Amino acid sequence: MSVEEKVLELIRPDDKDRERLEKVAEEVLSRLKGFDAQIQGSFRKGTWLKGDTDIDIFVFYPKEVGKEYLREKSLKELIQLFQDLNYEIAFAEHPYLILKINNVEVDVVPALKIDSGEDVITAADRTPFHTKFVTTHLDEKGKDEVRLLKQFMKGIGVYGAEIKVKGFSGYVAELLTIYYGNFRKVLESAKTWKPPIKLNLVEPKRDFDEPLQIPDPVDPKRNTASAVSLRNIAVFSLASKIFIERPSIEFFFPTEIKAEEIIGDILLIKVEFKEKSVEDIIWGQVWKNVEKLKNAIKTAGFSLIDIGAWGNSQTVKIAVQIEDKNISRYYLNQGPYFYVNGVDNFMRKNKYVWVGEDGRLYSLKKRRETNLEKIVLNNLSFKENFSVEMTWLSEINQDDKELHKFLRKRPTWMQT
Amino acid sequence: MSVEEKVLELIRPDDKDRERLEKVAEEVLSRLKGFDAQIQGSFRKGTWLKGDTDIDIFVFYPKEVGKEYLREKSLKELIQLFQDLNYEIAFAEHPYLILKINNVEVDVVPALKIDSGEDVITAADRTPFHTKFVTTHLDEKGKDEVRLLKQFMKGIGVYGAEIKVKGFSGYVAELLTIYYGNFRKVLESAKTWKPPIKLNLVEPKRDFDEPLQIPDPVDPKRNTASAVSLRNIAVFSLASKIFIERPSIEFFFPTEIKAEEIIGDILLIKVEFKEKSVEDIIWGQVWKNVEKLKNAIKTAGFSLIDIGAWGNSQTVKIAVQIEDKNISRYYLNQGPYFYVNGVDNFMRKNKYVWVGEDGRLYSLKKRRETNLEKIVLNNLSFKENFSVEMTWLSEINQDDKELHKFLRKRPTWMQT
Repeated sequence: MSVEEKVLELIRPDDKDRERLEKVAEEVLSRLKGFDAQIQGSFRKGTWLKGDTDIDIFVFYPKEVGKEYLREKSLKELIQLFQDLNYEIAFAEHPYLILKINNVEVDVVPALKIDSGEDVITAADRTPFHTKFVTTHLDEKGKDEVRLLKQFMKGIGVYGAEIKVKGFSGYVAELLTIYYGNFRKVLESAKTWKPPIKLNLVEPKRDFDEPLQIPDPVDPKRNTASAVSLRNIAVFSLASKIFIERPSIEFFFPTEIKAEEIIGDILLIKVEFKEKSVEDIIWGQVWKNVEKLKNAIKTAGFSLIDIGAWGNSQTVKIAVQIEDKNISRYYLNQGPYFYVNGVDNFMRKNKYVWVGEDGRLYSLKKRRETNLEKIVLNNLSFKENFSVEMTWLSEINQDDKELHKFLRKRPTWMQT
Repeated sequence: MSVEEKVLELIRPDDKDRERLEKVAEEVLSRLKGFDAQIQGSFRKGTWLKGDTDIDIFVFYPKEVGKEYLREKSLKELIQLFQDLNYEIAFAEHPYLILKINNVEVDVVPALKIDSGEDVITAADRTPFHTKFVTTHLDEKGKDEVRLLKQFMKGIGVYGAEIKVKGFSGYVAELLTIYYGNFRKVLESAKTWKPPIKLNLVEPKRDFDEPLQIPDPVDPKRNTASAVSLRNIAVFSLASKIFIERPSIEFFFPTEIKAEEIIGDILLIKVEFKEKSVEDIIWGQVWKNVEKLKNAIKTAGFSLIDIGAWGNSQTVKIAVQIEDKNISRYYLNQGPYFYVNGVDNFMRKNKYVWVGEDGRLYSLKKRRETNLEKIVLNNLSFKENFSVEMTWLSEINQDDKELHKFLRKRPTWMQT
């Protein structure tokens, strides 16, 4: 039995799985009588994975009501219908409801009914066109190929369009499978990818500048892969390459291996938010903070090895790994060549100045700040109220899987 | 009284100074009856400084005897003539005698008599042509201008063609004065120098590639300034600039100021040679060692601030100043982009490997050596027998003027 066959046995939902979700969907739909309500998403497309316990139910309004209606009135209508159930209000471009019924998560999403994927008013409006494109381009075999690809992406950590992951969306996985034909062929090609990667199921109606470019067949001025980070493209390409050489179930279901040593000095920054927020909004800020920290840490003179972040919308951990937390108070500062205008200024502004073998001026400068914690505090900012806790990692008996991954560096599938 | 006038009072020899040297010269010449012996050098040219206590006496042989003769026979002849005096054998291109008479050093140099500066067989043969060119192009006033320039160069530490200094020779100082007209004009121009600097008293008969190019008027295929280092050109240019703005005797006779603090970590390497050697031969090796150390120290991962060397042909001190002597055991190693051929090799050869935001592979590498003393020992080499002593500088109560200069960095004349 091939690796793919083994994996499919684990991820292909059976009749019982489908019936369970269908039953929940029917209950929700029955309450939406009189509305134009439809099952959408991967359950509808038949590309969902065993163990997935979420269904999308879209409620379509005539486009004439406008997106303001979705933002207020429709939400109220929906709440009235489901107020006796366990529900939550979530926010994307506009608010929607999350219901928890028999351990199944049902997203009830209001959207506008439009005539073409190119005329969307809100992002949700495009969904039925995606559903149609995928279902008309994939047979049963093709759906399993999508499942393999999704699980592969999950296993190597590049699945999910949310800002926290910046990975491949389910729709992108579907389009890749349609474009290349099957799971293997996707990987065979991905292993040779070099950005910019242009995969045109349809001619793009705009120039994209992202590293992976897959114009949306239902709206070709949109790049479906615009959110995929270069890092995730790289990880996917490398994993594809290694999988093709040596297929293994490890890629789909990676083993968890504990880290054995702490290299360099690692500052763990734990950020806690007082109130619950939308994950994408928190993580947009997390990555901005990470970028800012990177620059501040390097500018301060530390040798940054790596910086990572994980968590959810309530608690975020940022790990800063540097070669050495103790850095010198002074550093060498390279000045201008002796024959340029800047020399007078340089000699005036610096105390310790000399002329190097290369004819340039040099000076010794005092570092402004050599305490990393202070640098972090000066550079961390969120719109939400938050508290910070910082610790220098001294032992690795912590039970934090993501921390162990961060410390180990090398993914388990990277066997060469 | 201008700064120049004050300085001239200190450096212009008086009749007594001249008589003293003349007397010694006459004694030596009287022993050389029957030889074609002549006073040469700056005493002959009238550009010597008060306090200079050395005279060059050249003994010319017909060029037909060849340079082999100078290397052996002529030396023996000269030794026989002066064996009752305090003499030493010194080596340049060929050996010569150094006599010490009444605290005056007389270099007795054998050379070949040639018809033109362009037909030299040994470097010494060119000297009488230099003497003739200088004496026919400088009047008494001009000689004082040369004296000012030489003392200025001495004061800022760029005077001397020997390998230890890589500075301006007396002849170059004379040519600069002849080229520009006087001391002030030399500095007025030098402050605007930008390499390559081409000063043609005569059209060069060859393309030079050194930063300062002054073709020899008596042999235009030779660059008289070929030995001047870029650093010394830079120092001279900067000092000229500052002197023109604010003339001061400080440039000619710098005050000695002690250093106040040790910045970074400083390893003092004391190299001692068992036998006496020619200074140029030792210092050629010193600078090669310094270059080698620079590279080795940087490659090892230390942040090098500065490296300096001083001493003589018996004892050499090399000071290595680094930001911090303690460096991390591991360092960040940047690997190839994910789409190039090197990735397989990189993943195979490195233990800790991950993919960065930029799509490149990174790894953590163990440093081969983090002990600076060991790195120094592994990289120091001389043809002569030598011993090494290393100490980390912890106090600056040392009575080593050069060490204080190294620590202070900023020359005293650099007042802006």
